[in-house]
Amino acid sequence: MRHTLFRAALLAAAAAALPAPSVSARPVEGTGTAWTIVEGLTTEIGPRPTGSAAEARARDWGKAKLEALGFRNVRIEPFRTLAWQRGPEHARLTAPYDQPLAITALGYSVPTPATGLKAPLAYFPTLAALEAAPAGSLKGKVAFIDHAMLAAQDGSGYGPYGDVRRKGPGIASQKGAAGVVIRSAGTDEHRNPHTGITIFPQGVTPIPSGAVSNPDADLIARIAGRGKPMSIDMTLLGKPYPDAPSGNVIADLPGRDPSLPMILLACHLDSWDLGTGAIDDGAGCAIITAAALAAQKDGQPLRTIRVLWSGNEEMGLTGGGGDAYLKAHGAEPHAVAMESDFGADHVWALKTTFAPQNAPLVKKIEAALWPMGIVPHPGRAGGGEDVGPIIAANRLAVVDLAQDGTRYFDIHHTPDDTLDKIDPAQLQQNVDAWGTVLKVIANEPGPIATVAPAPEGGD
Amino acid sequence: MRHTLFRAALLAAAAAALPAPSVSARPVEGTGTAWTIVEGLTTEIGPRPTGSAAEARARDWGKAKLEALGFRNVRIEPFRTLAWQRGPEHARLTAPYDQPLAITALGYSVPTPATGLKAPLAYFPTLAALEAAPAGSLKGKVAFIDHAMLAAQDGSGYGPYGDVRRKGPGIASQKGAAGVVIRSAGTDEHRNPHTGITIFPQGVTPIPSGAVSNPDADLIARIAGRGKPMSIDMTLLGKPYPDAPSGNVIADLPGRDPSLPMILLACHLDSWDLGTGAIDDGAGCAIITAAALAAQKDGQPLRTIRVLWSGNEEMGLTGGGGDAYLKAHGAEPHAVAMESDFGADHVWALKTTFAPQNAPLVKKIEAALWPMGIVPHPGRAGGGEDVGPIIAANRLAVVDLAQDGTRYFDIHHTPDDTLDKIDPAQLQQNVDAWGTVLKVIANEPGPIATVAPAPEGGD
Repeated sequence: MRHTLFRAALLAAAAAALPAPSVSARPVEGTGTAWTIVEGLTTEIGPRPTGSAAEARARDWGKAKLEALGFRNVRIEPFRTLAWQRGPEHARLTAPYDQPLAITALGYSVPTPATGLKAPLAYFPTLAALEAAPAGSLKGKVAFIDHAMLAAQDGSGYGPYGDVRRKGPGIASQKGAAGVVIRSAGTDEHRNPHTGITIFPQGVTPIPSGAVSNPDADLIARIAGRGKPMSIDMTLLGKPYPDAPSGNVIADLPGRDPSLPMILLACHLDSWDLGTGAIDDGAGCAIITAAALAAQKDGQPLRTIRVLWSGNEEMGLTGGGGDAYLKAHGAEPHAVAMESDFGADHVWALKTTFAPQNAPLVKKIEAALWPMGIVPHPGRAGGGEDVGPIIAANRLAVVDLAQDGTRYFDIHHTPDDTLDKIDPAQLQQNVDAWGTVLKVIANEPGPIATVAPAPEGGD
Repeated sequence: MRHTLFRAALLAAAAAALPAPSVSARPVEGTGTAWTIVEGLTTEIGPRPTGSAAEARARDWGKAKLEALGFRNVRIEPFRTLAWQRGPEHARLTAPYDQPLAITALGYSVPTPATGLKAPLAYFPTLAALEAAPAGSLKGKVAFIDHAMLAAQDGSGYGPYGDVRRKGPGIASQKGAAGVVIRSAGTDEHRNPHTGITIFPQGVTPIPSGAVSNPDADLIARIAGRGKPMSIDMTLLGKPYPDAPSGNVIADLPGRDPSLPMILLACHLDSWDLGTGAIDDGAGCAIITAAALAAQKDGQPLRTIRVLWSGNEEMGLTGGGGDAYLKAHGAEPHAVAMESDFGADHVWALKTTFAPQNAPLVKKIEAALWPMGIVPHPGRAGGGEDVGPIIAANRLAVVDLAQDGTRYFDIHHTPDDTLDKIDPAQLQQNVDAWGTVLKVIANEPGPIATVAPAPEGGD
């Protein structure tokens, strides 16, 4: 459709003057500390993949911001890490029909030849079907792995269906595949494939690995259903990037009683390169920082609150910001760890892991959240990647404020991770919920005990 | 967020067998003739820009399909045309912040240097603001034109805001600009910019012209709001493609009385290259074709129904399929023209242009649509690009079945124009509405008069 249908509108437009705001009023703008942080990070820094100059700029930006907000002991703690760097990437289905594919490489993919990998494409409807393929049966082929991830409020689809990304390429390599393409681990219908790391186990040869968008995967599935042999020509030039520079930004709001173990709040500053790291995880840094300040409003809390804006969460295969933090700060007294790394939509549930003797503290947290509609949930709190190492090593108590993740995997790890996806009102609800919890736990005078590890290797 | 939050889900997944459907059940599949056509075109042909080998394959595909469906006199009528061909394209904002931009060239853009056009970026909040810029003030600069198009059921935002694309580059060139970037003429929030042709009037120097996605335009607007000078580095290598091959596919369902002027139904077979031409306009070809067949179900109608699957609608600057059709068939007797080129969402309103003496026929059409909830609308029927020339030349009566366009400009001219955007139930409602109208008008025994042209140069 070009424009005849709108000829009347065109004539009307020619007659009337256009409105002339000074700047387009289109995006919804927020206010407040949290909005300012995520707006600034996405506008002034943008994508900040591990090891990049942008990640370094983000650390400097973060240090200046945290100092301006009144935090103490603000410091950048550099570390070196394995990372991964994207290269040019494109692909076409070449048989039975010639169709371009919207593709992106997975982190820790190895490059195809610069002239492309041309191979038959073998369709597997599930990861289980791939696992069942005979040894050697994929020699010279590219495996396509389909799946059926659906949106869920708690994001639980990302466990089993995210495994297509995490484990699928390694399994395909073990069957002899020359490359692998997966349906994105995502719940949207846009031509923006979802990246994320894949994991080649020790001894498994890394192979070129990419994800296509859901509409492209639908196309491949329809063609597979016609029973005609498929082939692909794909160029993915991203590659691992050893010994990359990264770093954590750490800042404190000292408590009235420095002898009491502190409360650690974490987010991650690095982002995937395709978007601008708004929901993953600029929002998290915005929420924890604004909440730490909000907890000071009725007077300085008893305990120190520390914020950790972690480096290299996304590519932390052999060690990310959480590991670096444990190494540098594991000997310091910590009482509770919390992390925000699931977008900017509203908090709906509370999960905690406290020792039985801290049950009264849990009741106080639940009571404080009751007026906000945030419900206690029987699931076990896990924290997140950036606090995971210190939680495990020091057996810390954990509080999770579970966010609504219904649309999180529409956007996660795609070019669509941009500021406009953040609803300022829901972002502020996160800050309010976190601030409410912090006022309780940072003012807890009694001992907060260490927590027995979960059975079966959980936190 | 990587995966710690979902450790419980991961453990559960490890314990349970994954479901194993033979093909992922994710996309909603339709049935029936219309679905089969649009599914086939998008799956077996895909993008089919004017002048391409894919457009030629689509003509062959269409001829075979129409013959298989029982149409008569199925023929391909080739013509030559001016067209435009995309090249590699990418851009970055280079100051005050380094940020990649999701950009696509507009049709009839001329190429930048292969090494990129590096220039200051001047922000204009509206087309009117650009028009008000002093002559020569844009010399050496790239103009950015913002706007605030909103979704509307009748798509009327595309008139005034689409003009940013149609007219903005020409105006910027007249002010001396070296290039132009616009906010996409689209209503979505995805990193998929909207293409479409721009029009450089006679005597105006064509300049490189691109559109960025809405989130990128939001970013530029936010930076403009900070008042810091901006600059861009953009590479857009698409260029005009003179004397390209295109063609129409034409097929008839003969009526019982060959002496009565026929009913012409049109859609366009070409599509933009970024998507697969599902809603624009595979759906239109699907709807008109299935409806023409549906009109035969209660017996052969009096009048011949002809379908025109037009070539080169999208790039028809100096003549497209509608002009070629007029030239070849303008002398044949036509009674009514109709076109479907506004997606696949449901029909909600009826617009007609009939001569006053055919008021009883209009009443019959309205009565037939009454049980479907489709309301008579006072707007004037326009047809579409593919029937526009013959309507104007032969003063044909027109029937428009107005579709719900609320989400049309989320998808229009983007990579997201894929089959999954079509709701099979709404597609079928279109077929039912068209079939209902066709049964009335193709069985009209009395004369259907020519129509006086609209005042002020309308149809």
